[in-house]
Amino acid sequence: MNYIDDSLALHTDLYQINMAETYWNDDVHNRKAVFDLYFRSLPFGNGYGVYAGLERIIEYMNNFRFTDADLTYLKEIGYQDDFIEYLKSIRFTGTIKSMKEGEIVFANEPILRVEASLAEAQLLETALLNIVNYQTLIATKASRIRQLVGDQLVMEFGTRRAQEMDAAVWGTRAAFIGGFSATSNVRAGKLFGIPVSGTHAHSMIQAYRDEYKAFMKYAERHKDCVFLVDTYDTLRSGVPNAIKAAKELGDSINFQGIRLDSGDLAYLSKEARRMLDEAGFPDAKIYASNDLDEYTIASLLAQGAKIDVWGIGTKLITAYDQPALGAVYKLVSIEDENGDMKDTIKLSGNPEKMTTPAMKKVYRIINKENQHSEGDYLTLENEYPNEQEEVMLFHPVHTYYKKFVSNFEAVNLHHDIFIDGQLVYECPDLAEIQLFTENQLNLFWDEYKRTNYPAEYPVDLSEALWNNKMNHIERVKQAVKDKINKR
Amino acid sequence: MNYIDDSLALHTDLYQINMAETYWNDDVHNRKAVFDLYFRSLPFGNGYGVYAGLERIIEYMNNFRFTDADLTYLKEIGYQDDFIEYLKSIRFTGTIKSMKEGEIVFANEPILRVEASLAEAQLLETALLNIVNYQTLIATKASRIRQLVGDQLVMEFGTRRAQEMDAAVWGTRAAFIGGFSATSNVRAGKLFGIPVSGTHAHSMIQAYRDEYKAFMKYAERHKDCVFLVDTYDTLRSGVPNAIKAAKELGDSINFQGIRLDSGDLAYLSKEARRMLDEAGFPDAKIYASNDLDEYTIASLLAQGAKIDVWGIGTKLITAYDQPALGAVYKLVSIEDENGDMKDTIKLSGNPEKMTTPAMKKVYRIINKENQHSEGDYLTLENEYPNEQEEVMLFHPVHTYYKKFVSNFEAVNLHHDIFIDGQLVYECPDLAEIQLFTENQLNLFWDEYKRTNYPAEYPVDLSEALWNNKMNHIERVKQAVKDKINKR
Repeated sequence: MNYIDDSLALHTDLYQINMAETYWNDDVHNRKAVFDLYFRSLPFGNGYGVYAGLERIIEYMNNFRFTDADLTYLKEIGYQDDFIEYLKSIRFTGTIKSMKEGEIVFANEPILRVEASLAEAQLLETALLNIVNYQTLIATKASRIRQLVGDQLVMEFGTRRAQEMDAAVWGTRAAFIGGFSATSNVRAGKLFGIPVSGTHAHSMIQAYRDEYKAFMKYAERHKDCVFLVDTYDTLRSGVPNAIKAAKELGDSINFQGIRLDSGDLAYLSKEARRMLDEAGFPDAKIYASNDLDEYTIASLLAQGAKIDVWGIGTKLITAYDQPALGAVYKLVSIEDENGDMKDTIKLSGNPEKMTTPAMKKVYRIINKENQHSEGDYLTLENEYPNEQEEVMLFHPVHTYYKKFVSNFEAVNLHHDIFIDGQLVYECPDLAEIQLFTENQLNLFWDEYKRTNYPAEYPVDLSEALWNNKMNHIERVKQAVKDKINKR
Repeated sequence: MNYIDDSLALHTDLYQINMAETYWNDDVHNRKAVFDLYFRSLPFGNGYGVYAGLERIIEYMNNFRFTDADLTYLKEIGYQDDFIEYLKSIRFTGTIKSMKEGEIVFANEPILRVEASLAEAQLLETALLNIVNYQTLIATKASRIRQLVGDQLVMEFGTRRAQEMDAAVWGTRAAFIGGFSATSNVRAGKLFGIPVSGTHAHSMIQAYRDEYKAFMKYAERHKDCVFLVDTYDTLRSGVPNAIKAAKELGDSINFQGIRLDSGDLAYLSKEARRMLDEAGFPDAKIYASNDLDEYTIASLLAQGAKIDVWGIGTKLITAYDQPALGAVYKLVSIEDENGDMKDTIKLSGNPEKMTTPAMKKVYRIINKENQHSEGDYLTLENEYPNEQEEVMLFHPVHTYYKKFVSNFEAVNLHHDIFIDGQLVYECPDLAEIQLFTENQLNLFWDEYKRTNYPAEYPVDLSEALWNNKMNHIERVKQAVKDKINKR
């Protein structure tokens, strides 16, 4: 880490640089290319995703250039001077459209679209995916948990188990977008304005070797005290000592509650609730933590656990039950030698990996009668569904599933972020993004928001887009066949 | 991200700062405290772990101080000037002992030990855990995969699915320590000197809309070509086109092989092998990727897949099947008001969360006859097992399991890293660390290195350490009882 001018331009896969070199060597590097960024299936079996990462992408794009240290390294590993000279001058001159950060997203729809020179577009791929994959994953996980706990507070406590430092801060920002209330990570508080939360750990009790004394010492300097009560024995020592300290200090410490961090949280919370109520602290809150996720929370709630605030660590910040989102970045159209755009397709040994060719738009079809969304509708770039009387939504695999919607508004989900290399978008405040997510979720029926086995929300292709795809599949299959016959 | 003087000092949980404030307010902040960093169980059901993260920790420690922006933020969220003044001057003045990076590690033994003022030691906890947890997890996962593939090459290809950017670069460094040969991440290559690897993606084939042409264009500028063959149809298009290009260009492109990225890798690799051999390319290598991990690799190898090089992405860089290591940082001893060190213990509702009190050492007991390790042996700080004729190893839970070892060497696994705030350790090259890990693994019998159901390696407490722990359990239980009786 001894480079002063380290940049993120090399935060990419080697093959991106090799492809850029091939294009540059063949003088096709400036041909316009269109790439769609999307994921193929929703994580956690959830009914929707929450898109996060746009602010980080903008920051990355704004600083995108190869520094001297980057270029020196590339020369060391064998790239030639002429190509390095080209990389030195490269800047992003293309156009990026994206959904707004915090938008509700689904599988197989372009969240973000890059139109740029072939070389530029290729060099960005890895970093964009790295950012969107993780942040969207965590915002989605957080939103699942938020759905489950209703109005109760959920706090992000996972830094120590996060997958290195960037994950801790960007992950907790994503969790806030998904509906979390606060974080324990102080740097994330500073960088993003997220409320910070936390009181003390077991080590403080151990340091004083006396639980009651430790609580009193803490309370000398801190208000809003939440005492951690499981260092020695929760019900026989921790809760009684917390109550004793609270009574002794009275209002001066503003006793806020206790935190449970081990043992049976259902049983302990019910007993602790009873003890706090009997001692005259009916407003004291019970915080709980200890490897919680939406499944354990649901189970505790079902048993009537008396928990008011949930502290979620490992299982959220690592998206423990599915720690990666598989977003991809696929070439869908490219300029040919005559300057015309030609759509491209990738087939695959795995059918779900097939791409959908063409520059396209994503519309959300809002039913004007009930202000709920009927489905997302992917069209060719030059289709304008709002000019139609009705839209036909049909399932992209089971095409005989169809429905017709009239009296709708088709909302274009893509917004201009960069135009010809210039940033034209202003990022909202994080609190605004959180609110935006909450409001967008109101457009969806509950059937899509269940944490277990939600209904499948329609993401459909327009007929024109679907026909175009079928034609390209035929074209490529025929080309393969012809070549074989020629051999 | 608009702070020029942003630091990592706030990359901590809020409660650490609150505890530091409590100690400072009570004037006990400079009392010496000893914290052990360890994990409680091995990840992935593996028989051993590979420790990684020390270099990053040293970098973090060397830069540890609160900047003006940090202090301004703390004031904004309500901390008072006097305490902020104290934080402004705080530097690390303590001592850190650690195992060497790349060391083979086991559950419940201190990998790293901090002896410092109570406040300093507390402020470091979160960042140290964040670093060690992730990097050790990935080094261990990588080592599992390395064990399985024997002499075949394994490459790290996971950046796009990593949990944000730090995970991508530090994760691939950890993978290299665990035995990986190369990475696709160019920045990691630059920062750490890891060999970089990669050729081209599907998008290049799509950009040329002609597979053969794309291969030829790539080969114009690149040697050591590995052609990706599954864009349209692996066996009917990809492999024949790769062979055609290789034949046409002859030695000038130094045809190295093909890469399979979808479909049935066992079947396709066997067919592709046959086609390459028949075409006169018996030395061409077959690279494979597509959500691989040690389980899929084992299954493919069992079916006789003809794969020479494994590209591992998502499942390694996120440690997909267990994406967090639960390392903790626990207070084991603290100076009292008379300047004497007093051991501390934490009990818990979960028995495995109980701590082992006392400042301690970790020895590896090497049998001199066969140069293999008999077990790890935790002792009090002032025990010297090499002065004993024999050591007794007994299981810390099932204490009737014991064995006696004589003719041994007890190797102290802790090394001085910082003494009184001064760095006294020089980090080895990354390649040296990789070799160190490989050599250390030779000290262990194969029974501990199986990927499935390995034997349990003994990590045992000396009698003195064990007795000390039992006394502290009794002390605390008695204290809780006495308090209850008094009420």
